[in-house]
Amino acid sequence: MITTKFQQAIEQAEKIIMFTHVGPDGDALGAITAMGQMLTARSKQITMVVDSPIPPRFAYLPLIEDVQSKVDPWAKFDLIIALDCGDERRMGKPFAQLKHKPDVINIDHHVTNTHFGTINWVNSQATSTTEMLYDLFMALDVDFSPELATSLLTGLVTDTLGFRTPNVTANTLKISGELIDAGAALSTITMQTLNLKPLSTARLWQVGLNRMKLEDGLMWTAISHEERARIGHKSDSSSGLVNFLADVDRAAIGVVLLEMEDGAIRVGFRCRPPFDVSALATELGGGGHPQAAGCTLEGPLAKAEAMLVDRCKELIAQQSPNGRFQ
Amino acid sequence: MITTKFQQAIEQAEKIIMFTHVGPDGDALGAITAMGQMLTARSKQITMVVDSPIPPRFAYLPLIEDVQSKVDPWAKFDLIIALDCGDERRMGKPFAQLKHKPDVINIDHHVTNTHFGTINWVNSQATSTTEMLYDLFMALDVDFSPELATSLLTGLVTDTLGFRTPNVTANTLKISGELIDAGAALSTITMQTLNLKPLSTARLWQVGLNRMKLEDGLMWTAISHEERARIGHKSDSSSGLVNFLADVDRAAIGVVLLEMEDGAIRVGFRCRPPFDVSALATELGGGGHPQAAGCTLEGPLAKAEAMLVDRCKELIAQQSPNGRFQ
Repeated sequence: MITTKFQQAIEQAEKIIMFTHVGPDGDALGAITAMGQMLTARSKQITMVVDSPIPPRFAYLPLIEDVQSKVDPWAKFDLIIALDCGDERRMGKPFAQLKHKPDVINIDHHVTNTHFGTINWVNSQATSTTEMLYDLFMALDVDFSPELATSLLTGLVTDTLGFRTPNVTANTLKISGELIDAGAALSTITMQTLNLKPLSTARLWQVGLNRMKLEDGLMWTAISHEERARIGHKSDSSSGLVNFLADVDRAAIGVVLLEMEDGAIRVGFRCRPPFDVSALATELGGGGHPQAAGCTLEGPLAKAEAMLVDRCKELIAQQSPNGRFQ
Repeated sequence: MITTKFQQAIEQAEKIIMFTHVGPDGDALGAITAMGQMLTARSKQITMVVDSPIPPRFAYLPLIEDVQSKVDPWAKFDLIIALDCGDERRMGKPFAQLKHKPDVINIDHHVTNTHFGTINWVNSQATSTTEMLYDLFMALDVDFSPELATSLLTGLVTDTLGFRTPNVTANTLKISGELIDAGAALSTITMQTLNLKPLSTARLWQVGLNRMKLEDGLMWTAISHEERARIGHKSDSSSGLVNFLADVDRAAIGVVLLEMEDGAIRVGFRCRPPFDVSALATELGGGGHPQAAGCTLEGPLAKAEAMLVDRCKELIAQQSPNGRFQ
């Protein structure tokens, strides 16, 4: 833990700028608004920067309207705090363009963190950056308001998909219980961040489920750029469809292929133990975790699909406990 | 709490029979196997009865293979424990046919419980019967094994849909944390009970999403008996599809109609506050909670669908904060 170093650094600073990563998720925005609240309560002048639009579903977060996408490159700050950023580039242009760069405190839970800060606190065992901030704030005797608890619980809920990822510990649930006691509304956070979705997501699932196929333990689907354009699907994520396919009991591996505007194919893999898709994803130029990985392939879609189906079926045969998936 | 009465009752009993409800869910089976383990550890002769087949996804539960579906009507027991049963009929035939009925301890969390026992402990604030058993076992100084923790956590996870129902409290999460500390594997329980599904469920969603319509804030779909028969869908539940539809941001209410073998139409309603579907469901002969309710209608399907669409659109107009759903 970095309690003492952190306390010294913020005591000496007056003007503090915070960054989180481009394409921010609930943990990124929960962490930056939580840190912003804590520093405001200590009478610091704060600036919160995210080099991306804020998704509307996070509008309930305290201080979220104060998060800005740009900053004057010539502005001077006493301290930079980077939250949930695995490397410097994740902070985007506003950080890169800063002419005067003071010390950087780097707080993150990604195993791939490059330790780019002056002070680095990286805990890859934590489910989320806000889980780390909870510990830090407890050590600093911070008073937990309902608003602060809301920001922190948002990171815990979103990065664990509602306590469903394998890295959830007893401590994750106990911290979440404390944050509810402090005034965070779990069901509102779950509804806003995990359940609510645009109509285009329901249509993506409609198209995807119509194309789904199950062969030899592989459950997969492929969605073309034309189809995505027709239904107004903008992101490069299957919005949970790949999990839905992988959780069919007769599937060993679930795969979704999405053809992007530029012809590249975004691929998501999911599986349950003992299957492991990380090596295949890495070999294809991507990466990830044993049971959740991804990569980007060249098109055309049909060629990428045929290659992937072959490779995944091979993998399933190799990794099946009895040499064959039932 | 019934600690003293409960302790006296089990101290005086040698042969104890436990029942839970027909069509058992995770809380029912978690509660009966947890109580079974606790009593076995106290050297009682136990009999566990469920008047239904056990769904295969619960095969991981300790003692589950000892749960029987029948019992000799002439057998004599010193004590009956009813778990998660709102009324006597929920225990099914094996209970009804028992010739010698000793005292009944009724432990349940349903608000509609009829207090049919000799000793009744009903707590409708609890998310699950196993949440109540955790408190009881703590008061009794029971030693929590990983197996006992697994049974108890199963009820908490399944009855809250993975901590997503509005009745989840800080205490629910803290208890769950304690059960993980005691050795329960949260991600295994979530995977087995909430995520894994048969291929027929994916096909039900495929058919349902192809028929989905969104009009004036109502998102609905209808699936015929012929379609259900074709894809091998057996249950009278939409397996989460109604939640998926209701969670589209432009929907106020989500509805799924399922035509059964006998021509009856099973209807599920879901919504978010301030909308409330319970009065409509009750008026149509069903019931439920403000944001999750259901009913059964007469066919034909098209007629039931047309009536429901009209009624739901009226309801949305009445309950919309601005007189109209955006």
